[in-house]
Amino acid sequence: VRREIRGELRRLLESDDGVIEASEAYEHDATEHQSFRGRPDAVVAPASPEEVAAVIRWCYEREVPLVPRGGGTGFAGGAVPVDGGVVVSSERLRRIRQFEPQRWRAHVEAGLKTHELQRLARENGVYFPPDPGASEQSHIGGNIACNAGGPHAFKYGVTGAWVTGLEAVVPPGDVVTLGRGLTKDVAGLDLKSLLIGSEGTLGFITAAWLRLIPAPEYQLPVMALFEDVGTGCEAIDAILGSGVRAAALEYLDERTVEIAGAAYPPLAAGGPGFAVIAEADGSADEAARIRKELLEVLAPAARWTQAPTDRAEIRELWRWRDGVSIAVAAQLGGKVSEDVAVPLDVLPQLIEATVSIGAAHGLDACSWGHGGDGNLHATFMLDRGDPESLTRSRAASEDLFELAISVGGTISGEHGVGFVKRPYLERQVGPLAFERMQAVRQVFDPKGLMNSGKAL
Amino acid sequence: VRREIRGELRRLLESDDGVIEASEAYEHDATEHQSFRGRPDAVVAPASPEEVAAVIRWCYEREVPLVPRGGGTGFAGGAVPVDGGVVVSSERLRRIRQFEPQRWRAHVEAGLKTHELQRLARENGVYFPPDPGASEQSHIGGNIACNAGGPHAFKYGVTGAWVTGLEAVVPPGDVVTLGRGLTKDVAGLDLKSLLIGSEGTLGFITAAWLRLIPAPEYQLPVMALFEDVGTGCEAIDAILGSGVRAAALEYLDERTVEIAGAAYPPLAAGGPGFAVIAEADGSADEAARIRKELLEVLAPAARWTQAPTDRAEIRELWRWRDGVSIAVAAQLGGKVSEDVAVPLDVLPQLIEATVSIGAAHGLDACSWGHGGDGNLHATFMLDRGDPESLTRSRAASEDLFELAISVGGTISGEHGVGFVKRPYLERQVGPLAFERMQAVRQVFDPKGLMNSGKAL
Repeated sequence: VRREIRGELRRLLESDDGVIEASEAYEHDATEHQSFRGRPDAVVAPASPEEVAAVIRWCYEREVPLVPRGGGTGFAGGAVPVDGGVVVSSERLRRIRQFEPQRWRAHVEAGLKTHELQRLARENGVYFPPDPGASEQSHIGGNIACNAGGPHAFKYGVTGAWVTGLEAVVPPGDVVTLGRGLTKDVAGLDLKSLLIGSEGTLGFITAAWLRLIPAPEYQLPVMALFEDVGTGCEAIDAILGSGVRAAALEYLDERTVEIAGAAYPPLAAGGPGFAVIAEADGSADEAARIRKELLEVLAPAARWTQAPTDRAEIRELWRWRDGVSIAVAAQLGGKVSEDVAVPLDVLPQLIEATVSIGAAHGLDACSWGHGGDGNLHATFMLDRGDPESLTRSRAASEDLFELAISVGGTISGEHGVGFVKRPYLERQVGPLAFERMQAVRQVFDPKGLMNSGKAL
Repeated sequence: VRREIRGELRRLLESDDGVIEASEAYEHDATEHQSFRGRPDAVVAPASPEEVAAVIRWCYEREVPLVPRGGGTGFAGGAVPVDGGVVVSSERLRRIRQFEPQRWRAHVEAGLKTHELQRLARENGVYFPPDPGASEQSHIGGNIACNAGGPHAFKYGVTGAWVTGLEAVVPPGDVVTLGRGLTKDVAGLDLKSLLIGSEGTLGFITAAWLRLIPAPEYQLPVMALFEDVGTGCEAIDAILGSGVRAAALEYLDERTVEIAGAAYPPLAAGGPGFAVIAEADGSADEAARIRKELLEVLAPAARWTQAPTDRAEIRELWRWRDGVSIAVAAQLGGKVSEDVAVPLDVLPQLIEATVSIGAAHGLDACSWGHGGDGNLHATFMLDRGDPESLTRSRAASEDLFELAISVGGTISGEHGVGFVKRPYLERQVGPLAFERMQAVRQVFDPKGLMNSGKAL
C-alpha cells in the first residue's frame, strides 16, 4: 500500500524531490525522548500551494490521513504521524515572495526557516520579533500553526501578532487566502486567527504576510541571582510594577542554574540561586535608560547581578540561554518539558510545585521560562538507564496539568496541545467551548483527516 | 406582540431597569444620516451574564431575533434592529471585576465605556492603547465585537491585540469563557479571536480580560502640511522608512483641512494643504528624540510644521482631530464615511479616488484617517436639502469598495461590515472563505438569530 501511495503522489508533483524516501527523521519531532513515534505512509514536500492542494485533494478523496509538518521542532508531538498517513512537509516552500523593509512587511512561504527571516529582517534594518527556540530548524509555517512564542513575546507578543494574512490549503484541497497582508482588516470572521495555532487541524499553511517593525538599535540584557523562588518572583513582579517595559523577562530556577550554569562562566562565578534575566531594548539612550532602571529594581534584593554591554558577551548570554533546554536534557539523557502558563500571582507556586511533583514521582525536576508571561518550561528529567522514568514522567505531567488548570492557567503557553496534551484540553476550556472547537474543526475538515488525533 | 415580549422578558430580569421602554435612541447607530433604522420589539439591558443568558435562551427558543448593542457608535449599522427583534444592550454590565495595574491586567464587563477604562488605566500609571473615536460613548464590549482601531493602533494594534480572554453568551443561551486572561495560551482553537470582530453574530460578549502596559510618560505630536496628496504620502512613507517608530501616523486630505482647519487656529494659520500628524511617545528623552527625528523627516518637504510640547496644546490638537468627523458632517448636514484600508503603495491613489468618485456622483468628498495603516475614512458629504445625495452616496460607496477590493484592500479597517457593507464581503474574501465564515457562524448560531442580516 505504501509503495502505491508514493507512486500516486509522485505523479502529482512536478519534481522528483517531491516525494521523500522514508527517513527516520519524519517519524518523530522534539518529543523523541518520550518515544512518540509513527511510521508515515509517505512523506511529500510540495513546492507550491497548488502541489499542496493536489496532495490534499488526492488524500482527501481516498480518506488518507494527512500530517502537516514544519521543521519538526515541536514539543507536543503535533507533527508525529502517530497513525501513519501522508506527512506533508513545508521544506520546499521556501520562497520569499515579497520583502519590503521600507514598508515593514514580508510575504514568505511556510518553509522559510525562522532564523532566515530574522536575519533577512535584521540585515535590512527591520525586526521580526518572534523568537521561539530552535529557530535554526523551525519553519515560519510551523511557528504560525503552533502560534509559537519565545523570550521576546513578553514585549512583542507571540507569532500570531505578526501575521497579517495567510495562504493555506484547506480540505478538500482548495487554496484560500485569509487576510490580505493589511495591518487593519475587520471584514468578516477572523479565519486567519482561527488557523493560527490550529496545529494543522484546519488546513496546511503555505504562505504568510508578516508585519515587521524598525529594529531596536540595542538589546541589553540584565541578569540577577536571588536567594530563592520567592525573592526571584518578587523581583519579576517588581519589574512589572516599576513602570519599565522590558523586552524579555526570563527566569531559571535554582536546579536549572545548578545544571546549566556551569556552561556560562559569568553565572557559574555568581554562585547558585534563582536567576532572572530581563532585557532592555530601543535606541542607544533608551536601552541604556531601561537597563539602568532594570538594574535598580533587581539589584537591592539580588545576591549578584550582571549586565553585559559588549555585543559578543550579550550574544554569549543568549546563546547559553537558548542552550539551557539541551543542557538539562543532557543531565540524565532525556527530559519532558511542559509549557504551562499561569497567572503571575501563582507563578512561584507552580515553580515550586514542579520540583515537588517531580520528587513525588521520583524524578529530578526543574523549570525555566518566560517569567513575565507566567510561562514555565516545567521539566522532568528522564534517565536513559531507567525506562520507568518515562512512565513516571507521564504521571508527573498529569499532576502538573491538573494544577495549572486548577489555578486558572493553561496546559500550553507556546508548544500547542499536539498529541501529548490532548486528554487535558477539554478540562481546561470546558465542554461548551470544546464542543464548539470540534464543530469548527469539522467545518474545515469534515472527514477528520487533517492531523487527526491531535490538538482536539 | 411587542407588549407580550416585553412582559415576558421583564419576568426574566431581576430589576425593573432591565427592560427599557422603547426609546428612539435604540433605533439607529452613528449611521443615522444614512436613514438606517429599525424598530426593536424590545430593548433589554441585563445586569449579569446570567441575565443575558436567560434573555438569549428565551429568544432562541421562540426564534426571536437578537441584536447585540454597545454604545451605539458604530458606522456600519451593526447595532440597528433593521428587522426588529430584541436589542440586548451592554449598558448595565459595567462592573470592573478586577483591576491590577501592577500586573498589567484588568477584567471588566462589556458595558464599561472606553474612556472610563482609559482613564482608570492612566490614573494608575498604565495604558490601554486602543482609542477609537467616540470613546465617551462606546463600550469595551462593542469595541471588541467590532475589533475597533483608532490612531494609536498604528503602533499598538487594534482592540483585539489587548484582549486576553472573553466571557460571552452563545446560543442557545450558554455562558462560555474563551481564554483565561493569560498573555500566552495556545491550547485549542482560538475561539476568542473568532469572537473578536464578529459583530455580535456568534454571541454576546459580557466581559473581557484585558492586557495593559506601563503608560508612556510623554506623547508628543508633530504636524506638517504638504503641497498635495503625493508629497504628503511620500512623507508618510519616509517616516516608515526612517527607522523611527511613531505611535500614530495620521493624515487629513486638502479638502478636510479646508473644512475642519478653521476650528484649529494653529492649522488655520498654516494655510491650506495636505496634513500629516505623527506622534512620538515614550519616556521624556525617548519621546523628545523621536519627536526630533519625525520633524527631521517631515520638515524638508513640508510647507509648515507644528510640534506642540505644552500638554494643553497637545490636548487641543487631539481634541480637534477627534472632532474632524463632526466638522465634516456639519458642512452640509450629513456624511457617509467608509473605512476602507489598502496597501500603503496605493494609499495616494485611494485618497485621490475618493474625491474623484465623489465628484462623479455629484458629491463633495474628502478623506482623513490612519495613514500609516493605509486606513482611510473616505467621506461623501450629504446635503440635508437634497435627499437624492443619499442615493448618490450609495453608488459612490459602491465604487469605492470595488476599488479598494481591486487593489488588495479591505472594505473595513475598523468599523466592521455591519448592515451597510454586507453586499461586498464575499467579493473581498472570495467564495471559499465566505462559505467557511457562514458555516462557522452556523456552528455558533444554528438558527441564525444573532444579529441576523449583519456582517455575513
